[in-house]
Amino acid sequence: QHICKKSTFGLSKLTNSLSSGKPDTLPIIEDFSRRHIGPNAAEVEEMLKVLGVESLDELTRKTVPEDILDERPLKVSAPMSELELARRVNKIAAKNKVFRNYIGMGYYDSKVPPVIVRNILENPGWYTSYTPYQAEIAQGRMESLINFQTMVTDMTGLPIANASLLDEATAAAEAMALCYRNMKKKQVTPTFFVDQAVFPQSLGVILTRASFLGVKVVVGDYKSFDYNTPGLCGVLFQYPNSDGKVIDYTEYIKAAQANKALAACATDLLALTMLKPPGEYGFDVAFGSAQRFGVPLGYGGPHAAFFSVKKSLQRSIPGRIIGVTKDADNGLAYRLTLQTREQHIKRNKATSNICTAQALLANMAAMYAVYHGAEGLYSIAEKVHHSTCIVAEGARRAGHHIDEGAFFDTLKIKIRNDQAYQDALINAEIRHINIRKYDEPNTIGISLDETVTSEDLDDLLFVLGAPSVANLWQQLKPKDGGILRSKFERTSDFLTHPTFNNYRSEHQLTRYIRYLEKKDVSLVHSMIPLGSCTMKLNATSELTPISKPEFANIHPFAPAYQTQGFFQLIKELHDDLCEVTGYDAVSFQPNSGAQGEYAGLLAIRAYQHDIGQGHRNICLVPVSAHGTNPASAQMAGLSVVVVKTLPNGEIDMKDIIEKCEKYKDNLSCIMITYPSTYGVFEPAVRELCETIHSYGGQVYLDGANMNAMVGLCKPGKFGADVSHLNLHKTFCIPHGGGGPGVGPIGVKSHLAPFLPGHEVLPPIETTQPGARPFGQVSAAPYGSALILPISWAYLKLMGPTALRSATEVAILNANYMAKRLEKHYPIMFRNENGFCAHEFILDTRSFPGANVGVMDIAKRLQDYGFHGPTTSWPVVNTLMVEPTESEDKAELDRYCDALISIRQEIQDIQDGKADPVNNVLKNAPHTMESVTADTWDRPYSRKQAAYPLSWLTTSKKIWPGSARVDDAYGDQNVFCTCPPLEAYSISDLENPEVLQ
Amino acid sequence: QHICKKSTFGLSKLTNSLSSGKPDTLPIIEDFSRRHIGPNAAEVEEMLKVLGVESLDELTRKTVPEDILDERPLKVSAPMSELELARRVNKIAAKNKVFRNYIGMGYYDSKVPPVIVRNILENPGWYTSYTPYQAEIAQGRMESLINFQTMVTDMTGLPIANASLLDEATAAAEAMALCYRNMKKKQVTPTFFVDQAVFPQSLGVILTRASFLGVKVVVGDYKSFDYNTPGLCGVLFQYPNSDGKVIDYTEYIKAAQANKALAACATDLLALTMLKPPGEYGFDVAFGSAQRFGVPLGYGGPHAAFFSVKKSLQRSIPGRIIGVTKDADNGLAYRLTLQTREQHIKRNKATSNICTAQALLANMAAMYAVYHGAEGLYSIAEKVHHSTCIVAEGARRAGHHIDEGAFFDTLKIKIRNDQAYQDALINAEIRHINIRKYDEPNTIGISLDETVTSEDLDDLLFVLGAPSVANLWQQLKPKDGGILRSKFERTSDFLTHPTFNNYRSEHQLTRYIRYLEKKDVSLVHSMIPLGSCTMKLNATSELTPISKPEFANIHPFAPAYQTQGFFQLIKELHDDLCEVTGYDAVSFQPNSGAQGEYAGLLAIRAYQHDIGQGHRNICLVPVSAHGTNPASAQMAGLSVVVVKTLPNGEIDMKDIIEKCEKYKDNLSCIMITYPSTYGVFEPAVRELCETIHSYGGQVYLDGANMNAMVGLCKPGKFGADVSHLNLHKTFCIPHGGGGPGVGPIGVKSHLAPFLPGHEVLPPIETTQPGARPFGQVSAAPYGSALILPISWAYLKLMGPTALRSATEVAILNANYMAKRLEKHYPIMFRNENGFCAHEFILDTRSFPGANVGVMDIAKRLQDYGFHGPTTSWPVVNTLMVEPTESEDKAELDRYCDALISIRQEIQDIQDGKADPVNNVLKNAPHTMESVTADTWDRPYSRKQAAYPLSWLTTSKKIWPGSARVDDAYGDQNVFCTCPPLEAYSISDLENPEVLQ
Ligand SMILES: Cc1ncc(COP(=O)(O)O)c(C=O)c1O
Ligand SMILES: Cc1ncc(COP(=O)(O)O)c(C=O)c1O
Ligand SMILES: O=C([O-])O
Repeated sequence: QHICKKSTFGLSKLTNSLSSGKPDTLPIIEDFSRRHIGPNAAEVEEMLKVLGVESLDELTRKTVPEDILDERPLKVSAPMSELELARRVNKIAAKNKVFRNYIGMGYYDSKVPPVIVRNILENPGWYTSYTPYQAEIAQGRMESLINFQTMVTDMTGLPIANASLLDEATAAAEAMALCYRNMKKKQVTPTFFVDQAVFPQSLGVILTRASFLGVKVVVGDYKSFDYNTPGLCGVLFQYPNSDGKVIDYTEYIKAAQANKALAACATDLLALTMLKPPGEYGFDVAFGSAQRFGVPLGYGGPHAAFFSVKKSLQRSIPGRIIGVTKDADNGLAYRLTLQTREQHIKRNKATSNICTAQALLANMAAMYAVYHGAEGLYSIAEKVHHSTCIVAEGARRAGHHIDEGAFFDTLKIKIRNDQAYQDALINAEIRHINIRKYDEPNTIGISLDETVTSEDLDDLLFVLGAPSVANLWQQLKPKDGGILRSKFERTSDFLTHPTFNNYRSEHQLTRYIRYLEKKDVSLVHSMIPLGSCTMKLNATSELTPISKPEFANIHPFAPAYQTQGFFQLIKELHDDLCEVTGYDAVSFQPNSGAQGEYAGLLAIRAYQHDIGQGHRNICLVPVSAHGTNPASAQMAGLSVVVVKTLPNGEIDMKDIIEKCEKYKDNLSCIMITYPSTYGVFEPAVRELCETIHSYGGQVYLDGANMNAMVGLCKPGKFGADVSHLNLHKTFCIPHGGGGPGVGPIGVKSHLAPFLPGHEVLPPIETTQPGARPFGQVSAAPYGSALILPISWAYLKLMGPTALRSATEVAILNANYMAKRLEKHYPIMFRNENGFCAHEFILDTRSFPGANVGVMDIAKRLQDYGFHGPTTSWPVVNTLMVEPTESEDKAELDRYCDALISIRQEIQDIQDGKADPVNNVLKNAPHTMESVTADTWDRPYSRKQAAYPLSWLTTSKKIWPGSARVDDAYGDQNVFCTCPPLEAYSISDLENPEVLQ
Repeated sequence: QHICKKSTFGLSKLTNSLSSGKPDTLPIIEDFSRRHIGPNAAEVEEMLKVLGVESLDELTRKTVPEDILDERPLKVSAPMSELELARRVNKIAAKNKVFRNYIGMGYYDSKVPPVIVRNILENPGWYTSYTPYQAEIAQGRMESLINFQTMVTDMTGLPIANASLLDEATAAAEAMALCYRNMKKKQVTPTFFVDQAVFPQSLGVILTRASFLGVKVVVGDYKSFDYNTPGLCGVLFQYPNSDGKVIDYTEYIKAAQANKALAACATDLLALTMLKPPGEYGFDVAFGSAQRFGVPLGYGGPHAAFFSVKKSLQRSIPGRIIGVTKDADNGLAYRLTLQTREQHIKRNKATSNICTAQALLANMAAMYAVYHGAEGLYSIAEKVHHSTCIVAEGARRAGHHIDEGAFFDTLKIKIRNDQAYQDALINAEIRHINIRKYDEPNTIGISLDETVTSEDLDDLLFVLGAPSVANLWQQLKPKDGGILRSKFERTSDFLTHPTFNNYRSEHQLTRYIRYLEKKDVSLVHSMIPLGSCTMKLNATSELTPISKPEFANIHPFAPAYQTQGFFQLIKELHDDLCEVTGYDAVSFQPNSGAQGEYAGLLAIRAYQHDIGQGHRNICLVPVSAHGTNPASAQMAGLSVVVVKTLPNGEIDMKDIIEKCEKYKDNLSCIMITYPSTYGVFEPAVRELCETIHSYGGQVYLDGANMNAMVGLCKPGKFGADVSHLNLHKTFCIPHGGGGPGVGPIGVKSHLAPFLPGHEVLPPIETTQPGARPFGQVSAAPYGSALILPISWAYLKLMGPTALRSATEVAILNANYMAKRLEKHYPIMFRNENGFCAHEFILDTRSFPGANVGVMDIAKRLQDYGFHGPTTSWPVVNTLMVEPTESEDKAELDRYCDALISIRQEIQDIQDGKADPVNNVLKNAPHTMESVTADTWDRPYSRKQAAYPLSWLTTSKKIWPGSARVDDAYGDQNVFCTCPPLEAYSISDLENPEVLQ
């Protein structure tokens, strides 16, 4: 008999087959769920004991209302091992065909510097961090984001930029919305003019967004539009435009501005290295995609959009902005600035519904600029432009027509006759080349990018029936259509800041990236229990597929026969998500949770319109809702009516019924979060849904808390009509320091016809009979398609049983922590059995005698090596803790230890043992600088400051990148580009001489 | 005209084509050499100015002797961009065919955990560090290596293990050599018995090694060998053996030991989870390969071999050992222990010539064990074993023969008849399966591994003409050939230390890996100017190819038609290296520099034997030679005669001539390093080579300093006959914290027939007509083939011009630093023009009035965030600095600043301004613990301790992982497995209760 003691192995769920009778099949060795779920079997037992329940199942039954609990195992495939998964991914990837892409239209192949791929995109130190809510432990990525903003302001010539938007097309819609917001008197129909030569997918999103906002969009020729149109709030031109033309819009900008409208410019960062920037023409707004700065095509995303404005518009700019402020030691520090514009504060009055954006992609683009610098970017542009000149010359020589005028990288070519056109299409196919096909007869588009080699050009010239490169290059006249020495040529410097000049070698860049990384806390250090954010494991196996060229190098508008691998994967993920949620159809187009909300509400509106209920425009939103809910409702043209919650955290059904009665004619929908944002499974959810339905309303269920439900209950089965899922929460897409995200929406069958469509390439679900897409919400048909394999892989690796276990352990972990902490902090909102869902709220509102607030606790947690929980949301001055299933008991205990120790520190103040002002909490976080300084004049010891618990040894110590940041100062003194290297303190920034 | 000011772009070498007239071709944008070479053009100018020379060319002419300087540009291909390289790699990779491998023979497919791949193998924080010479900033990887050692001692049941050897076959040869060294009286011919069923490649290396050592090897059947043979020094059995049999050797071990011989056991880590370990049978030595613990096949390497011995042999064990010692603060710390056994101290009396080993691979294997733990490894073994039982049952049912007796994962199967044998071979081919083919009629071998699925088994059973898995599994009797419940079954526990039990989830393992990484200094932090080590950039583009399955998943004995990609790549690298070195042929088999020396010397010996000069056995070695040189010479059976150097560092030609005269009849060769280990190009190198040749000797030129010669001069052209190259220095393979390495040898044509061969699969170069391979030096035909793409990529990315520039800048950087430092420290050894080669020696031997030694300076550099230079080699108490071309001027300046500041600190002691004992140097490095402690009682400030220079801010600060380690203590108290977690100080270790 085998004697390797089972007791020493006891913690595992592995079967020891022969010794326990022969199993039916070979034992499964590599059970991925053991890697994903933190606690092992013994720890689960221990924790259950603490909670006084027998089993996970009992806990579930005492937590999830009986009438929604689903007993049936999920019908998803059996778990794969990581190796099987890798093999499967290879097979699927092989079904995608990677062509060379000259389609352009906002997506260009890029040489992604391998050093950036390895050290950022494939480095969990970068990709597992959250949006920089805790500024002091996020200084590294905020420095990188401010590099991004500086790059954008430099390139566009406009002084204020944000830290990314979701994609170029949503940025276009944001520009429109900004123009609309900026309009003083809105008596006349607000009108927005869009030049016809903007990218069709941008127009698509603008049209959708405008129609629900009540803005009239006029699409036409910029030359013939009447800029005196009453109610004109803004105009949009593209530079270079969708057909590649470089146009001087100066007089039209002036005309629009004379009519109090704003002028917005869709533009291209690479072109702006050679072209006079929008700011110098007088544009008020510029935006575009930063994709071609070192981010792969990825079948459409994720990519960072950029957005910049004139100084006067700084408080209207949508999205997150990183600003410079001072910290408690008077040093410079970065933080999220001007947050009062945002949804989490302004709710339905916010400048946008943006929460998750594209931080990781913005960081990649910024590093690309840092690595190349002005001269490198210019050279890349020059090569692209020269190549385009060659193609233009070749095309003309081959007898094709190209309009006169300047271009940068894109040519619209009318092929000389039908035969030549057919030949060109066939030859392109043969040479594995994708070009743009216009609806106009015999017309194609070609956009070049930095990956183009001489051989690629020869292939293109062959397709055009033109002479070869060698022949053309020698004969080219500098002026032929080119922009060099033209009036468009850029004369202003850019990227002159040392950051864009000091990291040219791979060693320098690697060290810079790692230096920034070292300042930040991510999941590679310790748990990040941000309530409502689900910071679970982002497993390597889930992430590796996105590095494969067969996924990364696909153009979003590539023909269907080249993207069969993506189709298969999207279909499988679609079906799995339907099974998990109980919905009948899913759209992957929304590229954030907030975007999903917006899309879901539009589906509701389109459906109601379809059934003759288009007048319904009231959206009930509980006070506890996430800020994106009211902000999205407003974007969808709905009026928000707030509904109350009961003192125990449950939705006030009485108030609901009252509001339903009151608005019964115009009730469009309710937006609820389930389990609620208070972290409880409300028992009356079925009833609530039925009530809303009985008043003709629809139920939008915010799926941000899906991690409490997978395998246990299904929104689509207990009454909701539509939900978004945050794949970047429940389904393992890493948060990237503030994005990317994917916010697909699941809908019941009656809403299924009304999913987002696409101007260029309709997604499969909208090509079904009966489909009546309401419009478009993102630039690409499937949104951020490149990262869908992550969620797909998670589902495949886990399988039905482990998916349920993960949820149960997520609930267990939360309840275990709540139990340990309840003697020290009041726990708000548990159900009648005393259990919370997957997260819970610590009441930190009142410590009589100690002037301690929630922020003090969050900052003090940094001294213990931890990222604080979500602060002041959904209840002001409380902490919301969501541990997730991926954290083991030891880690949960350490976090509890820290919170308990902090409670004692507060008690010491309350008891008069510690100074009411000069104490460890108020002075937190303590920097390495202060703790290692020669003088130490605090009334507590250095040890108390830096190592308050015994396991917190020097080798585990994490130091904040700054002392506590000064929020008020930062909001008053907006500075959101790279500070001069010489600036050591804020006063240097205030001194214009240093600034120049 | 384009106005983006050239001045701001001025530092770049980019051509701005149109503005400076049209170039012949499209401008090359992505010039990789700009990324590889640190300083930009302006910095080069500045540094040249400091040196008082006009150009790099002038510097070269003043540094490299005229009679060896080569003006002709290298004939290597034009530089590729990183993207072109990636495309080229894909094409080459596609020529390799990945079959499923059941060949076994020491190489098994493994599920490499993705979390380990991403966080170690693909993480420069791990792979760019050096051998842990500076213990205080290498605690992380030493903890991992001690995990490796603990794993080995646990699995083998022998208490002392080293931190890896080069591969299993060299480990076998080391075992033989250890037995030989252990022999008391060597009058009788020393004899070593090897059982015939060890792996053929192990036997190959043993035979080669033994023949030059003068040990007689008897190969035979362990049952019939006469263990009383006089002169018997050792015996070697394999367990399980090469044919898969598990045999109890107890009585033969006893018989050998009764004759004062040692008993060594080649074994398998996975098998030992189920099998009674070698130590429990009484073996003295155990060794094997750790490859199947999470390291890819890689066409043969790199993999870590393991080696363990009884306590009594601890001072005879070859290779590096990590031990536990105490630090200056009385804490536990790791260090390289028992170094006095090693080549750098014992030279030709050393236990081996090992310098670079396989640290990175040992770390991967250790982490694999940490991640799986005992129960996981056991389950893997169980699956493998059960699968093998099924195949055995199937084979027998199909009428094939398998010998009776126990097996683990390997079966030797005699197929029932010729027809069935032919069918099996063809069907294997069709199903993409590789099996072992024995020379015996109709005999095949099958070895299973953890990647095997039920479908794989069905394929194998199909090949055997046997029933399917489902049929077999149900009917299997537990006893059928299996080891469970047999007398072989393991009863002892293993991997009980908490480290092997605390990191089962991916979060836990990720955090553990990152926690260790954080303690160490690598190239991602700052320059590591270790003289003679060439710590240049290891570019990501060079490293990405090795992650491709088409390279990683190839078995070393796969048939040639499956490995055409490798052949192409090896051929191209071969030709490029011939061109760069001036040699006529290259062998890639040696997997370290030292192994290359040994192989090169054997080539010389074989050649001399061939021309009737086999008696020549004297090897001249300059006093300044690297320790591996004399150690290798001894292994090659040569007698080392030391030759002197002149006070100016040059070889003493007079002494050479004298020694040549004295030994003229028996002079075999000289081993020189060029430029010399003193960092100078000696002018008389041609003359020296001619002199040696005139006495019938051969010239071995140690190519460790090739980084000073690439593109400037060629050893093969100025008189050397053979050299090894350290691809892990000059050719960009990262050092991995102490390996892997590749030490190919280049030879002139007369030596080309005498390159290493291989018992199983002769390398191409030994299949040429006239080839007479001298034997075998490594386990795999092409050594560590998987990492050859790194060097190949470097050469392709750089091209002829940049390769030369890199060398020139390496020389420039060294001279620039020497110049800046010469006012502060004497610089030893420069040429008559005052220039050093690519490295230089700082004289730190005497600071009158200050009791400061070279170690104090090296440790103090850690406080400045730097890894010290090479200490006390080649001159005792000096520092040898090699900056390499990859460091920019700012980094060189920072390093100089640090050294200059330290010089001032020494001056302060000399001037009586600082305490002679209690000062920043003697107390260096200063730990975070001490600088943040509440009490500070040093006579200098915390700031002086931790931030002695203004640019050394907290965000740049690097803290050592321990205070200064106590070397003496560690050597006296050898403890080389994981210390108990409860042990906080060394006294705990001394307390047996804590230890148990
Ligand atoms: C409850 C809830 N709803 C919606 C969102 C918005 O999701 P996203 O950040 O992806 O836009 C969040 C994000 O945290 C959330 O917590
Ligand atoms: C001059 C010299 N020769 C030989 C070697 C041995 O090379 P390896 O460590 O690869 O065995 C070294 C290593 O540092 C060296 O510096
Ligand atoms: O991300 C949140 O706003 O919760």
